[in-house]
Amino acid sequence: MINDVNYKELAVKARSIYTNSLDKTLELFLFDEATKAKYDELPSAIGETTSDFGAPAKFPFEVYLETLPRSSLENITEKDPIELLKDLKSKKISCVEVLKAYFHAAVVASKLTNCVQEFLPEEALAFAKNLDDNYETMKDLPLYGLPFSIKEMIPFKGRSVTHGSLCYLDRIVDYNADIVNILMKSGAYPFVRTTNPQSLMMLECESFCHGRTVNTFNSDLTSGGSSGGEGALNGLYASTFGLGSDIGGSIRSPAAFNGIYGLRSTLGRLPTADYFSCQLGSESILSVTGPLSRSLGTVELVMKTIIDAKPWLVDPTLVSIDWKSAQPKKKYRIGVLLTDEIVNPSPPIKRALQIVQDKLKDVVELVPFKPYHHDKASEIIGKLYFEDGARDFRSTLQNGEPLLEQTSWAIDGAEDLDMHEQWKWNLEKQKYRKQYLKHWNTYTDKDGNILDAVIAPVFPNVAPRHRTTKYWSYTCQWNLLDYPVLVFPVTTVDEKLDQPEKDYVPLNDTDKYFYEQYDSPKTFEKAPVNLCVIGLRNTDEKLVDIAKIIKKELS
Amino acid sequence: MINDVNYKELAVKARSIYTNSLDKTLELFLFDEATKAKYDELPSAIGETTSDFGAPAKFPFEVYLETLPRSSLENITEKDPIELLKDLKSKKISCVEVLKAYFHAAVVASKLTNCVQEFLPEEALAFAKNLDDNYETMKDLPLYGLPFSIKEMIPFKGRSVTHGSLCYLDRIVDYNADIVNILMKSGAYPFVRTTNPQSLMMLECESFCHGRTVNTFNSDLTSGGSSGGEGALNGLYASTFGLGSDIGGSIRSPAAFNGIYGLRSTLGRLPTADYFSCQLGSESILSVTGPLSRSLGTVELVMKTIIDAKPWLVDPTLVSIDWKSAQPKKKYRIGVLLTDEIVNPSPPIKRALQIVQDKLKDVVELVPFKPYHHDKASEIIGKLYFEDGARDFRSTLQNGEPLLEQTSWAIDGAEDLDMHEQWKWNLEKQKYRKQYLKHWNTYTDKDGNILDAVIAPVFPNVAPRHRTTKYWSYTCQWNLLDYPVLVFPVTTVDEKLDQPEKDYVPLNDTDKYFYEQYDSPKTFEKAPVNLCVIGLRNTDEKLVDIAKIIKKELS
Repeated sequence: MINDVNYKELAVKARSIYTNSLDKTLELFLFDEATKAKYDELPSAIGETTSDFGAPAKFPFEVYLETLPRSSLENITEKDPIELLKDLKSKKISCVEVLKAYFHAAVVASKLTNCVQEFLPEEALAFAKNLDDNYETMKDLPLYGLPFSIKEMIPFKGRSVTHGSLCYLDRIVDYNADIVNILMKSGAYPFVRTTNPQSLMMLECESFCHGRTVNTFNSDLTSGGSSGGEGALNGLYASTFGLGSDIGGSIRSPAAFNGIYGLRSTLGRLPTADYFSCQLGSESILSVTGPLSRSLGTVELVMKTIIDAKPWLVDPTLVSIDWKSAQPKKKYRIGVLLTDEIVNPSPPIKRALQIVQDKLKDVVELVPFKPYHHDKASEIIGKLYFEDGARDFRSTLQNGEPLLEQTSWAIDGAEDLDMHEQWKWNLEKQKYRKQYLKHWNTYTDKDGNILDAVIAPVFPNVAPRHRTTKYWSYTCQWNLLDYPVLVFPVTTVDEKLDQPEKDYVPLNDTDKYFYEQYDSPKTFEKAPVNLCVIGLRNTDEKLVDIAKIIKKELS
Repeated sequence: MINDVNYKELAVKARSIYTNSLDKTLELFLFDEATKAKYDELPSAIGETTSDFGAPAKFPFEVYLETLPRSSLENITEKDPIELLKDLKSKKISCVEVLKAYFHAAVVASKLTNCVQEFLPEEALAFAKNLDDNYETMKDLPLYGLPFSIKEMIPFKGRSVTHGSLCYLDRIVDYNADIVNILMKSGAYPFVRTTNPQSLMMLECESFCHGRTVNTFNSDLTSGGSSGGEGALNGLYASTFGLGSDIGGSIRSPAAFNGIYGLRSTLGRLPTADYFSCQLGSESILSVTGPLSRSLGTVELVMKTIIDAKPWLVDPTLVSIDWKSAQPKKKYRIGVLLTDEIVNPSPPIKRALQIVQDKLKDVVELVPFKPYHHDKASEIIGKLYFEDGARDFRSTLQNGEPLLEQTSWAIDGAEDLDMHEQWKWNLEKQKYRKQYLKHWNTYTDKDGNILDAVIAPVFPNVAPRHRTTKYWSYTCQWNLLDYPVLVFPVTTVDEKLDQPEKDYVPLNDTDKYFYEQYDSPKTFEKAPVNLCVIGLRNTDEKLVDIAKIIKKELS
């Protein structure tokens, strides 16, 4: 399976796959002349080679909005997909028109942020045409006509799946992931494959397959990762929704860093067993999938549509729990986690936590929530992520592909565990999960009302500078526990309100590192500030309901 | 944790724990004189030492019925626990009276079949008294006053847990298993701990902790295992229900061999994460728990009661799927698996399959179901059961405890897997699960009605002679797939109808071995003939519903 052709040669090939798909897209979906002229002049995040990071615009989102025709933005891509769906179903707009607008959006997004690994113009056009041609029989499909994006590691028929490692560039799969098939049967279809980083094990998005994906709002900052392409693309509203995967924060960090929603669903709700990555067959910590979108309604609709299709009849790893929209409670009981007590959040994150508490205090019951030995969780998951001592991953470097700084950080200290050592850490994991559930239950009130959810930071800071995202305990905490987490937007960095704290005494070296990274709000100009809401296993529906309340109160 | 005192010394200690608990039971729950006289004269399945198998009565069930007072049998122990529950809740009978009758039954059962590891007279009496004393506030508990049995490996406060290996005899646990706590909160309580074999990995029940548990109906035959004590005790109706565990057939073989119901529930429905066994932390193949009982109604009530208690709020490994009694369908679509095509069933099993088909053909839709590479399933699970090459188990023999023949068969060929080998076999498992689901779906009819369940043999024969139960593919097949399985009684061996097949040409050596084992129906005189019904994951409720139909049609 592993290709030992020198990585530089493969990088050229990867780039040509991208370029060919772009050319085909521009051929099938012509820009008008004015837009084309603007597009050609755009500063590019795509360098000469995949080792070169180009010269992106400082604030991609602003340039993006100026590049595309106002009508296309207003009537199609900036519209909430839930509203767009109504236009599609009522034939106010055709599927091909929608697809064209989204391709133009994605082409611009790609140049501005380097978020696309490959466009799928021919397949998507055939699909959209078929929908238009069979409008009467297909218009009732729940996602009729919505183009969506998929992370590169998700199998798509006839395409190579590298999950960020060039050695896999010739691995062409002959099937679609189950989740893709289900969505296509529901009337949606993939139109782009988005970038993911080397090893998938980083909260940034850099690889020799594509280069570097930059943040939607400030290209000095990371898009997050590993679903970084999804974060940037959806951050620009250049997709209706995207599918990511998450084993340590890979849906949540890109959602948070690009100001959108992202759901790390509970293991067993959505089909993900046929996704690619390193470490296939390792079951100690499992990756999950979930949607990223600027539209909360779309996140909910996608979840409901997939689960209504009874995916457990296709993927034996799933549990047959129907999607039941939460019955809104009189008053949710919600914990607020201000810090993991290892790394304290930066000023904008602190401010977001305060905003949310202020806005929610009358509509839900808020209680302070203390972390329970989050350092222990990091230790356990650290042992289990690379239980083979990262041998499997390292084998991907045989073709000379350099080890990136972030991957190096991720696999640092990985140990090749003996079977009994694996069991020992699995036992530690099981014990910790039980302790944490007990901890959660201590917040049940005297009338027996259980804590419904916890609001917390996604990461100790807003989107960091490139190659500085060296801490993932705020996210991997919930992977270890397999608790669902929904990321939601709150505000953006404010130059006045978010000044660094003076005279701060760091808790430890990592805290010091993060404290120093947050040197000035200017560095993080325009960066979104998101938070997340966490629930017990299989309370995904409840999290959506709580996010709706938050959205309403914040608006 | 491991005690290296010589096993013979520990065996004496184990026997004294048993004897002390028996003496206390007889002291607290006096037999009447006539019964005591009969009891003293009973042939005993309990030898001088735990390496000695005593001289049990040939047909324990018959002797059992002659030993106990008719009134106690009729009014209490032989009564369906569902009916007994009504008497308890209406105060027609007290909890202590019920307990006394069950203790007498268990004491006799223990002597006849060696099915009890330890009696719990003081705890049970205190519990029953408390129920009686607080009748008004407690009578509405769903299991008010039902004494039940637990397999020795299930933690019970203040007692040692050996799971069949003497080296653990001094491991006293300071908590009850979550499932025990839930049942106790529901008004039921454990009154005996039942025997389990060395290593737990055999479909028989022999250990140096207790000796050998024999079959309820014919002591030349095995009780099955590893929940062998539960099989024999419940086969005699000397418990209302029992809790077993099952990683390869350990609930199902004792249920089948002793003519009762036994449910291997879907992983994640019932709390089992705190049970003891070797290989703790190994997650490639997981054990599940479930009830064994002569009463199908009790199996259902126990499942419902535990799941109604929301055990996922205590045990983080569980999924929050409510117990919903199946809505009976117009007509179930049920497959019939006649053979796994590796070992063909013996004449009584074949006859039972025919009986069930004849009785069901008008009330359900029957379709022939072909096995899908069951040899592959055996191969995969064989690699994953002892993924450490049985090192963990072997460490239990350091005190000189001999390796029993059945354990030796189980660990034969076990390989200490490297991490990548474990992943490889996990991938094979995942692939096979997906293929099997696809296979199952090929039985969906043209109107889209999915196959609801499959009726199949539990084992290729009725209860075998001791130390001959060397094939578990009929049961471990469903462990690999994590499909729930409910074992149900059909008939008993018939000397005339169940003659060995003449001129049979065996398929292979294992088939030949089994063919030769079934030398005459006389050997298996009075042995029950059970079958099982298998469903897709989390269809436990449906299996109960189908078993009700079968029960009705067979009666």
